[in-house]
Amino acid sequence: MRIGIIGTGVVGQTLGSKLVSLGHQVTLGSRDKDNEKGLAWAAQAGPDAHAGTFAEAAAFGEVVLNATGGTVALAALRAAGAEHLAGKLLVDVSNPLVFEPGGQVTLDPVNTDSVGERIQREFPEARVVKTLNTVNCEVMVEPGRLSGEHNVFVAGDDAAAKAEAVALLGAFGWPAEWIIDLGDISGARAMEMLMPFWLRMMRHFGDAEFNYAFRRPA
Amino acid sequence: MRIGIIGTGVVGQTLGSKLVSLGHQVTLGSRDKDNEKGLAWAAQAGPDAHAGTFAEAAAFGEVVLNATGGTVALAALRAAGAEHLAGKLLVDVSNPLVFEPGGQVTLDPVNTDSVGERIQREFPEARVVKTLNTVNCEVMVEPGRLSGEHNVFVAGDDAAAKAEAVALLGAFGWPAEWIIDLGDISGARAMEMLMPFWLRMMRHFGDAEFNYAFRRPA
Repeated sequence: MRIGIIGTGVVGQTLGSKLVSLGHQVTLGSRDKDNEKGLAWAAQAGPDAHAGTFAEAAAFGEVVLNATGGTVALAALRAAGAEHLAGKLLVDVSNPLVFEPGGQVTLDPVNTDSVGERIQREFPEARVVKTLNTVNCEVMVEPGRLSGEHNVFVAGDDAAAKAEAVALLGAFGWPAEWIIDLGDISGARAMEMLMPFWLRMMRHFGDAEFNYAFRRPA
Repeated sequence: MRIGIIGTGVVGQTLGSKLVSLGHQVTLGSRDKDNEKGLAWAAQAGPDAHAGTFAEAAAFGEVVLNATGGTVALAALRAAGAEHLAGKLLVDVSNPLVFEPGGQVTLDPVNTDSVGERIQREFPEARVVKTLNTVNCEVMVEPGRLSGEHNVFVAGDDAAAKAEAVALLGAFGWPAEWIIDLGDISGARAMEMLMPFWLRMMRHFGDAEFNYAFRRPA
């Protein structure tokens, strides 16, 4: 499959390398055509790895992944172009982290809105699924690095798009029964609002190698 | 020990009954002296169970628990009186849920502030510890109803107060190694912002009998 990834940071590169290793063609998109991170990634990730602009990546992909920071996601997707997103599964893995001067991390948007919802509102013809933003990118593409069952979540308005996203997660190594459907795209609020807790837990553990599981009555 | 509980809802009653069963003297405080819920609880919970005003409950307690809704917590604690909170462990289990007309639940405060922080700021002589707000009240007082290890969290500025809160949680059945310290009272933001996710998970499971655990590398 041809996959376009919006964003050349560590999340986009990690997702891109995993997808190439799974046999997909990937274009990593950046603001500038000659982005060094995108070109360097494409050079080392093999013949199925390409670098281009946001618009080139989105046009290339049968599926598009948003791996930008959540606070710049809309600007990046506007640059990618609504016409290159229409009808496609658009997987949003972003978190709208704002690093405050005092060391606190806040979210923008939050509470009454989310990046996932904003993307779906601004690009109504895209089939947006929020997922994977609740784990570190190493865990995203290799859930087996943690022991035992743990969970990721999907939220979106389009049931078929969620099924496609679940299949993609399955290729990453997520068994279907570990993937919890949180409902429509407004579930993105709940998922993004996990971030302050996730960051505190990262501080507690000393690294990002963790994920949530659930306990129920016996 | 004498314990004052601010709030006569199901959370306050559940905490109160557990504390009485553990041998403590409990006064459940309400806005009005003749609050029917408080009186009915005291009548059925035995001779160590009392009902009174917010101020009477706070004055009674060597330890005070805030079990009001988070959006009314400050007003209730003002009525309880700063002089009745000074120097005491004040355990805040509240969540600032706002039930929106469209069915969404939002938080107020959120993101840049939390109920826990507001309480600590307004009552600087109280020793505030945020805890237990991340689980249903049945799980709060009986963690063994869920199978396996699962976690609760504490956040607060006073290390000795956190140790007292951990001891209280221990009496409820929480082993010390299940209790995760999220740092200073601003950790209350992270804990309160779990609520939208918790509510989605409650919808997923169909009940509130669940809690979080963590997976780590083997």
